Amino acid sequence: MEREKVISRLTNLGNEIINEIHKHETPKMHIPQRGLSNVHFNEKRNILELGDKKSTRSFLNIAHARKFMQTILIASKCKELVSRNKTASIRELYYQLKHTIADTKENTFDDQSESDPLIVDLETMLGVLREELHLKADDKGTLIGKIVIEDSGDLIDCSKLGRSGLSIPSIVEHYKFKKVEADYVLVIETGAMFDRLVEEKYHLKNNCIMVSAKGQAARGCRRLVHRLNHDLKLPVIAFTDGDPWGYYIYSVLKAGSMALAHESRRLGTPKIKFVGMTMTDIKEYGLEKVTEKLKDLDKKRISELLQYPWFQKKEWRHELELMKRMGVRIEQQALASKSLEFVAEEYLPEKIGKKELLP
Amino acid sequence: MEREKVISRLTNLGNEIINEIHKHETPKMHIPQRGLSNVHFNEKRNILELGDKKSTRSFLNIAHARKFMQTILIASKCKELVSRNKTASIRELYYQLKHTIADTKENTFDDQSESDPLIVDLETMLGVLREELHLKADDKGTLIGKIVIEDSGDLIDCSKLGRSGLSIPSIVEHYKFKKVEADYVLVIETGAMFDRLVEEKYHLKNNCIMVSAKGQAARGCRRLVHRLNHDLKLPVIAFTDGDPWGYYIYSVLKAGSMALAHESRRLGTPKIKFVGMTMTDIKEYGLEKVTEKLKDLDKKRISELLQYPWFQKKEWRHELELMKRMGVRIEQQALASKSLEFVAEEYLPEKIGKKELLP
Repeated sequence: MEREKVISRLTNLGNEIINEIHKHETPKMHIPQRGLSNVHFNEKRNILELGDKKSTRSFLNIAHARKFMQTILIASKCKELVSRNKTASIRELYYQLKHTIADTKENTFDDQSESDPLIVDLETMLGVLREELHLKADDKGTLIGKIVIEDSGDLIDCSKLGRSGLSIPSIVEHYKFKKVEADYVLVIETGAMFDRLVEEKYHLKNNCIMVSAKGQAARGCRRLVHRLNHDLKLPVIAFTDGDPWGYYIYSVLKAGSMALAHESRRLGTPKIKFVGMTMTDIKEYGLEKVTEKLKDLDKKRISELLQYPWFQKKEWRHELELMKRMGVRIEQQALASKSLEFVAEEYLPEKIGKKELLP
Repeated sequence: MEREKVISRLTNLGNEIINEIHKHETPKMHIPQRGLSNVHFNEKRNILELGDKKSTRSFLNIAHARKFMQTILIASKCKELVSRNKTASIRELYYQLKHTIADTKENTFDDQSESDPLIVDLETMLGVLREELHLKADDKGTLIGKIVIEDSGDLIDCSKLGRSGLSIPSIVEHYKFKKVEADYVLVIETGAMFDRLVEEKYHLKNNCIMVSAKGQAARGCRRLVHRLNHDLKLPVIAFTDGDPWGYYIYSVLKAGSMALAHESRRLGTPKIKFVGMTMTDIKEYGLEKVTEKLKDLDKKRISELLQYPWFQKKEWRHELELMKRMGVRIEQQALASKSLEFVAEEYLPEKIGKKELLP
């Protein structure tokens, strides 16, 4: 979204409130509800979405007045950030706005836990991403491969970054994709497996872009993967551990998360596919000796996933039920038991070549 | 250390054991003890060091035999890795070595917790870094600024990486420093503060290299900082939160850690200095309103630091005792309460310019 459009949405919010004051009405805002009862899975689009339920926040309601004031402060600071083309972390935003209100002993904010949820209110109310409000969360993740990215005037050839790769920042809205020679994107759960594939030059030999999520993917990483798929039409394939946590990392990349259902359309990548580790890999590749027994917490998580609407595809029910029955999990790095090169020279090229991918 | 030298140390270990067998002696290894009783602070060098106490591991001692076998397996695999010029994560090493011993029901390793400490045994016994044995831990951290690094044949100009920066890998032994125009290195605790300084172009305006540690610095990050100081003679300045956790991050960068005392000489940077946040900053810059109350865990940690020999310099005793007395901590990002630009345009240039640095 253009900066001008974000500013105009923020300005409209302010104008509506001014109008209400002029008309001697209660100034109010209408905020989409984010509770589970207002989150649903859109099967057609394959993403989690927010429903239509809204709450009203009124300035003249004593239970709402403080939050109303805080929301306006945040909106006003975001307008300043976007206008000045500056960004701030959500922690900096809190510090920037924290002060004692003149002639009172009242602080605008006492703790960051007061400002964080109001940022999400603003995002959903205006239909803009946090990143478009110029607010940053933590960054995490690395990218390497055949793509040239323009970042703030610098042309970065991501295939010429040795074994190091590009650090994915928390905001990637300003990235311009210049020259793209890759055939697909491989998103890898663990940093160690990413390192292995970099060492084997997998990205060069297989003409792909590799992204290391380092656990649950950060927002910047999810947005980048979305953009690589959406803007460049590159297929995306995920490679995680074979356990409920890895499968959930995949599902967040694909369909979005419950907490951020309002942003699934811009953070999720519904067309992403899954290469492994699957439970069927264990027998197929003779990995029985390097599985690990499920712990109670794993078992509980499997049962939870089996209840999520977006895990009802038969392939995923099959994997999860097989995992339960076999009582084991398997890590990406367990492939090293065959040989260090196995994952790069056999496992991935074979499965991707034969399109043995889960939906 | 050259690969040949590492291989020869590993070969010598094997040869000694073969000689003992030929002489009908018990094959044995002598391993430096790593308990606290064998760690001391070298005040002259300003680093934590391992003492001379050793333990003996004998093959014919039933309590040692399994560990002896495992240590030899690890040494042998490391020799293979170094010879083939491959690296492996410590998890991959475990998977590579895990198997059932022929004609028995005995596994070589049952869990990674068996192999990890033996890797450290091997490091200390041979006097080589884990990275020199071609073993990797997790990577973390980002670098940006006026330095050209050669990484695996690629020349990376780290001042041309937009706002993204270079992802610091877990092994940086292969980095060659080509063109260095920076005057110093600034190591920053949090990713958010690093982002702030990148946005303000602090590294370009102040001609420095910036490194984001993202919390406690990973080994690759510590080794890189050490090399920038040791090989290039660049001064290094640390910038952390004003709390016992930030101060400890600084002390690990400087003097090394107790658990890795055997590697302080190559991972520590004794000449590093500290710019902030200090307790005196609070009054100096009028930050009283944006401090946070110490929690019990913070207070306990302060008392612990006050007992460490390497926190006995008067400047550090002063800071820690002041923190205790004031009962507050202060974050890097609290500087945003002045203005977003304050840290980059006033705080850091002023303090670094006036050399207001702690030892």
